[in-house]
Amino acid sequence: MGGNSLGRHFRITTWGESHGKALGVVIDGCPPRMDLSAEDIQTELNRRRPGQGKGSSPRKEKDRVEILSGIFEGKTTGTPISLLVWNEDVDSRPYEALKDVFRPGHADFTYQAKYGIRDHRGGGRASARETVGRVAAGAVAKKILEEKKIKVMAYTVELGGVRAEKMDYPEIEKNDLFCPDKDAAKKMEGKIQEAKLQGDTLGGIVEILVRGCPAGLGEPVFDKLEADLAKGLMSIGAIRGVEVGAGFGVARMRGSQCNDPLGPEGFEKNDAGGILGGISNGADILLRVAVKPIPSIGLEQRTVNHAMRPVTIKIQGRHDVSAIPRINPVCEAMVAIVLADHLLMQKSLSRG
Amino acid sequence: MGGNSLGRHFRITTWGESHGKALGVVIDGCPPRMDLSAEDIQTELNRRRPGQGKGSSPRKEKDRVEILSGIFEGKTTGTPISLLVWNEDVDSRPYEALKDVFRPGHADFTYQAKYGIRDHRGGGRASARETVGRVAAGAVAKKILEEKKIKVMAYTVELGGVRAEKMDYPEIEKNDLFCPDKDAAKKMEGKIQEAKLQGDTLGGIVEILVRGCPAGLGEPVFDKLEADLAKGLMSIGAIRGVEVGAGFGVARMRGSQCNDPLGPEGFEKNDAGGILGGISNGADILLRVAVKPIPSIGLEQRTVNHAMRPVTIKIQGRHDVSAIPRINPVCEAMVAIVLADHLLMQKSLSRG
Amino acid sequence: MGGNSLGRHFRITTWGESHGKALGVVIDGCPPRMDLSAEDIQTELNRRRPGQGKGSSPRKEKDRVEILSGIFEGKTTGTPISLLVWNEDVDSRPYEALKDVFRPGHADFTYQAKYGIRDHRGGGRASARETVGRVAAGAVAKKILEEKKIKVMAYTVELGGVRAEKMDYPEIEKNDLFCPDKDAAKKMEGKIQEAKLQGDTLGGIVEILVRGCPAGLGEPVFDKLEADLAKGLMSIGAIRGVEVGAGFGVARMRGSQCNDPLGPEGFEKNDAGGILGGISNGADILLRVAVKPIPSIGLEQRTVNHAMRPVTIKIQGRHDVSAIPRINPVCEAMVAIVLADHLLMQKSLSRG
Amino acid sequence: MGGNSLGRHFRITTWGESHGKALGVVIDGCPPRMDLSAEDIQTELNRRRPGQGKGSSPRKEKDRVEILSGIFEGKTTGTPISLLVWNEDVDSRPYEALKDVFRPGHADFTYQAKYGIRDHRGGGRASARETVGRVAAGAVAKKILEEKKIKVMAYTVELGGVRAEKMDYPEIEKNDLFCPDKDAAKKMEGKIQEAKLQGDTLGGIVEILVRGCPAGLGEPVFDKLEADLAKGLMSIGAIRGVEVGAGFGVARMRGSQCNDPLGPEGFEKNDAGGILGGISNGADILLRVAVKPIPSIGLEQRTVNHAMRPVTIKIQGRHDVSAIPRINPVCEAMVAIVLADHLLMQKSLSRG
Repeated sequence: MGGNSLGRHFRITTWGESHGKALGVVIDGCPPRMDLSAEDIQTELNRRRPGQGKGSSPRKEKDRVEILSGIFEGKTTGTPISLLVWNEDVDSRPYEALKDVFRPGHADFTYQAKYGIRDHRGGGRASARETVGRVAAGAVAKKILEEKKIKVMAYTVELGGVRAEKMDYPEIEKNDLFCPDKDAAKKMEGKIQEAKLQGDTLGGIVEILVRGCPAGLGEPVFDKLEADLAKGLMSIGAIRGVEVGAGFGVARMRGSQCNDPLGPEGFEKNDAGGILGGISNGADILLRVAVKPIPSIGLEQRTVNHAMRPVTIKIQGRHDVSAIPRINPVCEAMVAIVLADHLLMQKSLSRG
Repeated sequence: MGGNSLGRHFRITTWGESHGKALGVVIDGCPPRMDLSAEDIQTELNRRRPGQGKGSSPRKEKDRVEILSGIFEGKTTGTPISLLVWNEDVDSRPYEALKDVFRPGHADFTYQAKYGIRDHRGGGRASARETVGRVAAGAVAKKILEEKKIKVMAYTVELGGVRAEKMDYPEIEKNDLFCPDKDAAKKMEGKIQEAKLQGDTLGGIVEILVRGCPAGLGEPVFDKLEADLAKGLMSIGAIRGVEVGAGFGVARMRGSQCNDPLGPEGFEKNDAGGILGGISNGADILLRVAVKPIPSIGLEQRTVNHAMRPVTIKIQGRHDVSAIPRINPVCEAMVAIVLADHLLMQKSLSRG
Repeated sequence: MGGNSLGRHFRITTWGESHGKALGVVIDGCPPRMDLSAEDIQTELNRRRPGQGKGSSPRKEKDRVEILSGIFEGKTTGTPISLLVWNEDVDSRPYEALKDVFRPGHADFTYQAKYGIRDHRGGGRASARETVGRVAAGAVAKKILEEKKIKVMAYTVELGGVRAEKMDYPEIEKNDLFCPDKDAAKKMEGKIQEAKLQGDTLGGIVEILVRGCPAGLGEPVFDKLEADLAKGLMSIGAIRGVEVGAGFGVARMRGSQCNDPLGPEGFEKNDAGGILGGISNGADILLRVAVKPIPSIGLEQRTVNHAMRPVTIKIQGRHDVSAIPRINPVCEAMVAIVLADHLLMQKSLSRG
Repeated sequence: MGGNSLGRHFRITTWGESHGKALGVVIDGCPPRMDLSAEDIQTELNRRRPGQGKGSSPRKEKDRVEILSGIFEGKTTGTPISLLVWNEDVDSRPYEALKDVFRPGHADFTYQAKYGIRDHRGGGRASARETVGRVAAGAVAKKILEEKKIKVMAYTVELGGVRAEKMDYPEIEKNDLFCPDKDAAKKMEGKIQEAKLQGDTLGGIVEILVRGCPAGLGEPVFDKLEADLAKGLMSIGAIRGVEVGAGFGVARMRGSQCNDPLGPEGFEKNDAGGILGGISNGADILLRVAVKPIPSIGLEQRTVNHAMRPVTIKIQGRHDVSAIPRINPVCEAMVAIVLADHLLMQKSLSRG
């Protein structure tokens, strides 16, 4: 059936494998007459580029986006926008030894079970490199949101057991880990170096904050805003949990604590995380996601091969220690895509 | 646009308001020649009925389901199955006083913001009563899963701060709280009584376990199994967080801990919660959801009316203290619906 | 998979069998705050009622519609509108003799081939009675179009070989055949009586005219307006051909004849039928559909039974001689539904 | 909203403008482990290439397809297949003079009305060149059908008033017009030369025959097979009418003539065109489409510019005289795409 499209109004379809010729995305439903340049998209792609942060692998991807359609004289035309990034600097040889082996924590086993065939090179379609299309589409979604003064920010609130204690938003773009707490960022870097030396990897938590979202987005009862956001975020490879507002904290709250009182100026606190009954309420939208440690570790692991015979592997090559910080722009992209989709849907309710 | 349908292959469309004439669901895409009776559905509806558990409100809903189409001589025919439950024993008078007031924690404000009109009686479409259609459809989904020996169970692992310490599965259907720990269940009941006396309400955590799910379900990269499950669960009113397998726990794990080693017999542990790369891996699927306290509390609350003027309210009437245990069958239903959908989708990949 | 939903923005899901308990439709995506009463819908249902025209069967269906959800104090709320019509005056006995026989021209054979089971009573889901849900939903779509002064009319231009020579629109609602030519209508009635005596049935052509449609509706390149209209119309049981504007006549035209010149006041003729490149151009939309003779004839027919053994049948009971005029309101409904859907979609392109 | 995707199971998304950088298609839902090479696709693209037939323009498009994803070691992997064709030999200068003019019969006016912006070069997205993506996707769909021995053929049965009198199928691929009647093909060529000298263009009729389609495809009541086929075909630019089986001929038939009797060997004639009640019946599927004359004529035409001021234009450049024969492979592609989609959908009904 294929599950490579997302959205109803602002609809994206991504394609491409880690070591294939190229990756890309087709965006259908982008409003016409909107300024859009390759630079708008490149800026976002650069934010997810490896080698940027100390936690990232040094693979030199150039990742230059090409706009192949949908733009005329610098403006969107309402026709599909096709974006492409060539795969360069690809070396599939290290994967040759693992082509019949199911790497633990990876999708090797399940792709083989589902499709009976898999492109093992670099993880194929299941590679984190697939997110190139998401980030490119997210850049377009962000342009739509910008026109409404809606801003999406994803930042690191926990990594390797270190938590950010401060929420100093301007700091986020200043350090390599997109962390709003400068001191915590330093400690997180320490944890990364430590894990790297041990051949191990780290998990963490990313928070996503949306400012300026108007009330009214979300389509109950199934396409509720938080439901679509949860789907969008949970569809990112490394994410194992999603929560909105007080999140799992609600389990130990009482109604009298959890309810946000309303005053003439709006909500007086925001444990709802900006969404009530599946519809945005005008307050900041607040989400958090749990990011699992990257499964490609340098330590010896037990697993099986295609014949289900036990083997022991040790993954070679230079891999990231944590999906953070590269996953942060991906989270931003997914939230932006879902919001743009709902923003356009909401227009249909307008009278006149 | 409407967001009242879910699924692609096994597609449900629910309708109905809390105090309207009736509620129901239309199921499109159910395989033909499957036994299906009103009793199959009634059994599930009875499990979500109020007045069953001590945590539940005493409203006497009969909730008798009627099958209006799609069944011939006790078997499904492949045509849409329309299920209906009449609303009886409805008293809208207590809501009259609140018709111009936005109850904190409820969707009153956002429905008004989105639609510019709302049926205030009993919360209208945003009422938990909307889940009648979900549970009815879930009963049909469970029949599909049963044929493949797939079983879905939702049980309470935390309520009002009390955690279940034991996983005694047969106990689940024996106590009113669907709790696998008899002793914890008793303590939870105590917390409920205590909160009720105080006019307050409680949150908790429900875990959902799926046994017997074959490897191969899930449609990367967006319709991954955990993404669709997260959406299905997050679309339930009271749920504010969803996690799979080790969930938020992954944030503090290392790759060497988090990866599940594979042996000749399959996965040797299950921190992945049965899903890798968006596809079921044949192990048990394990999900947890955070359930917020019911927002209808008996205590005085500050809020505003439609004119955004401050008012103080105290919600009358007998409301549940916790969405648990009534939400448990709803969680089961949503998981069953998503799995049935993916099970049918997966068939298209079969050769021959 | 099920194919019982249509539309993306204004989305309808119909259900019900000819001799089942009831039939109905759920409409998702209807704009809120629109006046809607049972009478609005009943008026349209009455137009498709049998016994109205001389060409129609005398079965006394009351077909009273019930609105079960989505309306509050006479206005739409933006939540799903569930409409239901009970099946009364149903006598399934005449169908008993045919339960193992594939009636020629009917869907008996194909439903059995597809589903391996079928409700033979009255044709089950494949009965023309299924259109009750379409007409009910069409009534709601018409209300949406009315607000924009868009009007849809379906009328008979050919029946039993008699063609309407005049286009006297006010005449359409005055005769039983929805024919814009009073004299032709009389001749058509003669043909109907003649065929009825012979136990045979008649085909014809229905034209659908849309006035007041603004330019801009349609979503190239697949969801072009004429493509969605063709699908909507071709999904009606008896229809075997659809054409727009000059239709099949274009085959013998030259470009210099077929092109509609544009002047300062708009298009100077309308061979395009109001649609260019898949998008409405502001002129009248003009469609024609070919309606096959009703397959239930009183004459002896050769066919086979479920065992593929030859049998001879003669269909008893009083059936219509032609799907016209009952199909005309169904055509109107389908066109209205598709237009309402595209009208709402188009809103998303608006700036601001 | 965008309407550039088609299909539910086998889902294609096309993109690209006539004079943009490239055109392409993403196919999602193609079954895994199927042989697929660039040659398979190139063969079909070559069949729609201009300069092939005498009725076609001499523009030298190389149209070499590149497979960018979804194939591994010559086989499909179940991941999205991205196909791309670069636009070369593009000269946009002749269009400069027309950039503010609405060419009659073209989509210039409606694209401007809908989007408020348009890429005028070569017709932009509304160009027939857009069908490159359709034909490429159709080649993949044909591979799926081939495995089931289903064959789709589109051939010319009328052009410029000349009708094919013979149905000599092997002749179809032997002449430039895909005409099954050699003598008629010669006369059609004569009509083309004549029209060309006059600066005018011609319409015609294409018939599509599907052999080997099993009974059971189609999803009533809206996604009926003929409804989806009609949509697919009507979404092709030049097509203004679609009919199945006896088509508009049914209007003058009686039920006793129109019904196809069933014998032990199957249907004894095929006026139904292989589809009953929206589901294939195992007989040949037969469709016909009306193709309008190409609107780009060399004769003087009256029209208006963007300011709605009258202007007179004469379209320069070498254009085809008829959309036939280049439209024939496009018709085949659309029918193949719809059938592949339904074939995969039907699998979900299988038990076990």
